[in-house]
Amino acid sequence: MEPGTARIAVDLLGGDNAPAVVVDGALRAVRADPDLHLLLVGPPEAAGRLIDTLDPAQRARVAVRPVHAAVGMADHPSAARGDSTVRAAVHAVREGAADALVSAGSTGATVTAAALGLGRWPDVRSPALVATLPAVAGPVVLLDVGGSLEPRPAVLARHAVLGTAYAAVAHAVGAPRVGLLSVGSEAGKGDRARRLADPALAAAALPCGGRYIGLVEGYDVSLGTRADVVVTDGFTGNVLLKAIEGAYAMAGGPPAGGGAPRAAALLGVAGTVVVCHGAARADDVASGIALAAHLWRRRAADLVRALLDGADAGDREDTTDRITDTEVPTS
Amino acid sequence: MEPGTARIAVDLLGGDNAPAVVVDGALRAVRADPDLHLLLVGPPEAAGRLIDTLDPAQRARVAVRPVHAAVGMADHPSAARGDSTVRAAVHAVREGAADALVSAGSTGATVTAAALGLGRWPDVRSPALVATLPAVAGPVVLLDVGGSLEPRPAVLARHAVLGTAYAAVAHAVGAPRVGLLSVGSEAGKGDRARRLADPALAAAALPCGGRYIGLVEGYDVSLGTRADVVVTDGFTGNVLLKAIEGAYAMAGGPPAGGGAPRAAALLGVAGTVVVCHGAARADDVASGIALAAHLWRRRAADLVRALLDGADAGDREDTTDRITDTEVPTS
Repeated sequence: MEPGTARIAVDLLGGDNAPAVVVDGALRAVRADPDLHLLLVGPPEAAGRLIDTLDPAQRARVAVRPVHAAVGMADHPSAARGDSTVRAAVHAVREGAADALVSAGSTGATVTAAALGLGRWPDVRSPALVATLPAVAGPVVLLDVGGSLEPRPAVLARHAVLGTAYAAVAHAVGAPRVGLLSVGSEAGKGDRARRLADPALAAAALPCGGRYIGLVEGYDVSLGTRADVVVTDGFTGNVLLKAIEGAYAMAGGPPAGGGAPRAAALLGVAGTVVVCHGAARADDVASGIALAAHLWRRRAADLVRALLDGADAGDREDTTDRITDTEVPTS
Repeated sequence: MEPGTARIAVDLLGGDNAPAVVVDGALRAVRADPDLHLLLVGPPEAAGRLIDTLDPAQRARVAVRPVHAAVGMADHPSAARGDSTVRAAVHAVREGAADALVSAGSTGATVTAAALGLGRWPDVRSPALVATLPAVAGPVVLLDVGGSLEPRPAVLARHAVLGTAYAAVAHAVGAPRVGLLSVGSEAGKGDRARRLADPALAAAALPCGGRYIGLVEGYDVSLGTRADVVVTDGFTGNVLLKAIEGAYAMAGGPPAGGGAPRAAALLGVAGTVVVCHGAARADDVASGIALAAHLWRRRAADLVRALLDGADAGDREDTTDRITDTEVPTS
């Protein structure tokens, strides 16, 4: 764990099992990291239960921003119940009361609230959800895992740039190898979307010494032997991540380096945002909070943003047919 | 293993490591199953090495159909080298010299050779590659895993019928539960293709007491707790299957019930055809041969075909807006 205070706003009402597992996860996170400060956003009575179990030193690092569930929402799905809390958590980051936010609520609601409240990077129209999987030779950065279900080739190329910068900044991967997920590794393999995206990724100027190695396959996501960054659409990335998680459950537990992540970073908005799985358990929430703190301490969002600008400059110099990104985000 | 002679034609030149691993796999298969007869289709010298290691009783169950690699093809990829052998294996099935065929060559070449040589079922324009994964509560039938990369909704609905019949016939699953793979289980989750396919699957008349349960997620493919049959496009199915295989490798090996299959049945052609992974190892080839023998002994292809006719009759009675299937196969 890197040193440095990190102040994380936590959406207490996001997720299928909120607030109980969120409170439990927050408790674990604050005990594990002495430089972590939490801003609990949600019903004060739920936060109170957490605070009561802490010692005075830990208690000093926890604050509450009271947000009550909307009247009449008790019977609504957790997604709707959590909408007001995720907006309040975004607001806390915008006004500087927190450095980053974590929510296990509806991905769409979080992406929308973050894009509206914090702003989108102007040259990233489709923010990407980025998951990092432990693999044989190091981490594998997989994107998108649910943000853009049907991205155009230019968006996939943009996500290749984002993923490369993220691998370098968040995981210290040198000269990341970037692959496009398909059904075979030979050029030309795949559906129409892949055949269009392959040249777009090949033409993208990747930061941090990144290089595009072409098509990769499903194994490469789990094993990571061929690529450090795997680019795919959000539909495929989402089902893939959950299938890997299920496979580890079938195999009796995750491998030594850790299993499929249940938290993902949102890249493309002006702030540090981590989305946890709706079915997150307490340790998943704690991992999501730790990821948010890690990204904040590395100033990952700012650095990725700066690397995009550099890649863009390279792009303009190196290619005449510059890839443009005009997709409206799905969220 | 069920009793009954099964005569399997084996494409000796299909696969990345042919003929060595194919010969080795065939050897294991013939030793393991005393009612198995093999017709080895390929260079006689490769077959000869196999036959020399067998005892006389085993040797009596192995025949050779000599096919030499095309002149000048030595430097070509295995896919091209194996095209003539897979066509010859299809021919052997058509003329009644074999009951089924197995190839680890190019999936596209095998599907094309089988469709042309054996004929397609008239109401299945897009044959499906069907993989069976061992899961918690029993097998999960996943289709398509690489035949139709971009199927239309009507094709997915047709595959739901095929998969239901296959689960009942090949794996004795009673009243199969059928799910459509998506990014969430609530209705409306997913990309455009899923939103169009969901009502098409809901309207399909499923045989064998099958029922459509709606959207399922990636975990459901590995764990099998919610559905016995999972329908998806061939792109997603292919990358998913390989990601699960990679996850088991990461976790130190497959779970007790077996790992991700490296052999798939081809449904929609008039014959028993099994496609092995191009990177198949000897035990994968042996598994593929055993699968072909199992399907032949259960008369799976004929029974699935007959069940389709019954489902069609139900369809015509039960729905006014009958789903039609007019897609040209991708292969």
